Amino acid sequence: MPVHILRLGHRIFRDKRITTHLFLTARAFGAEKGYYSGERDSGLEESVKKTSDNWGGDFMIEHVPSPKSFASNFKGKIVHLTVYGLPVEKKIREIRKGKNILVVVGGEKVPPGFYMLADWNISIGSQPHSEVSSLAVFLDRYFRGEQLKRNFPNAGLRIIGQERGKKVIRL
Amino acid sequence: MPVHILRLGHRIFRDKRITTHLFLTARAFGAEKGYYSGERDSGLEESVKKTSDNWGGDFMIEHVPSPKSFASNFKGKIVHLTVYGLPVEKKIREIRKGKNILVVVGGEKVPPGFYMLADWNISIGSQPHSEVSSLAVFLDRYFRGEQLKRNFPNAGLRIIGQERGKKVIRL
Repeated sequence: MPVHILRLGHRIFRDKRITTHLFLTARAFGAEKGYYSGERDSGLEESVKKTSDNWGGDFMIEHVPSPKSFASNFKGKIVHLTVYGLPVEKKIREIRKGKNILVVVGGEKVPPGFYMLADWNISIGSQPHSEVSSLAVFLDRYFRGEQLKRNFPNAGLRIIGQERGKKVIRL
Repeated sequence: MPVHILRLGHRIFRDKRITTHLFLTARAFGAEKGYYSGERDSGLEESVKKTSDNWGGDFMIEHVPSPKSFASNFKGKIVHLTVYGLPVEKKIREIRKGKNILVVVGGEKVPPGFYMLADWNISIGSQPHSEVSSLAVFLDRYFRGEQLKRNFPNAGLRIIGQERGKKVIRL
């Protein structure tokens, strides 16, 4: 059940680190591919690519100039993460039945069309927090934690968890 | 089982938004109080306070000049979130038995002492992603999702989750 991520309205100066954290989370938590709208940011693309080069897998991101038409043409179901939506715990079973999903993650202002376009508007709690947290918890629930145990193919580096200290092996 | 959060090495310019997201996540996901070391940041403190003023509860943050002595003197167990640690799923039951925990979240470089000081070094997957994701998933697992259903006392605003659109009520 492949999961794609669409981040709306990226702004290079303000969002650089948040969007990077968002896509690294997407990759680490089992998403297939990322897309973003807003300002095109080659530094962002590069740093995501570098992570996949070092740590494995082929997760990458791509800029989309028109997110609404991109989402409309997506072959699958759309989950829009928003604090105004229905609680994740009530809908996650239903969402898991979709074979191909696009998870839409807002920036500062989400065009109202996305609330209509989405098959589900889903909240991770009803308090303000972070799109990074929302995506992480959504994917953790969606994949039932299995994504954390996954090995990434073609990795150059791998961390071996320790009680104390750091162990990284070169492959 | 009160949970406190300590964020290490905050840098105003670089970390402002990440640290804000981290503490809003801490609040929304049921932590009692936040602490941070590094550069003192009154804007950060103010924006966390404003969130509690609007959305309820009394979560606040406080600057600590010496995080190592703060953690050493903490009355309870210490969980250090690090990609180099043991998988959360193997240790979460054991951690839940601690009545009072301090969750330490690193910045760019964590002084090696914290690996020794911690009762548990815990990873949320063994891939690089985000301290915001790590904290969110850790707290979600720790509280078994119950934190998302909590009502915050003395809130001025509350969101009522909808299938479409936005509904916010003033209390």
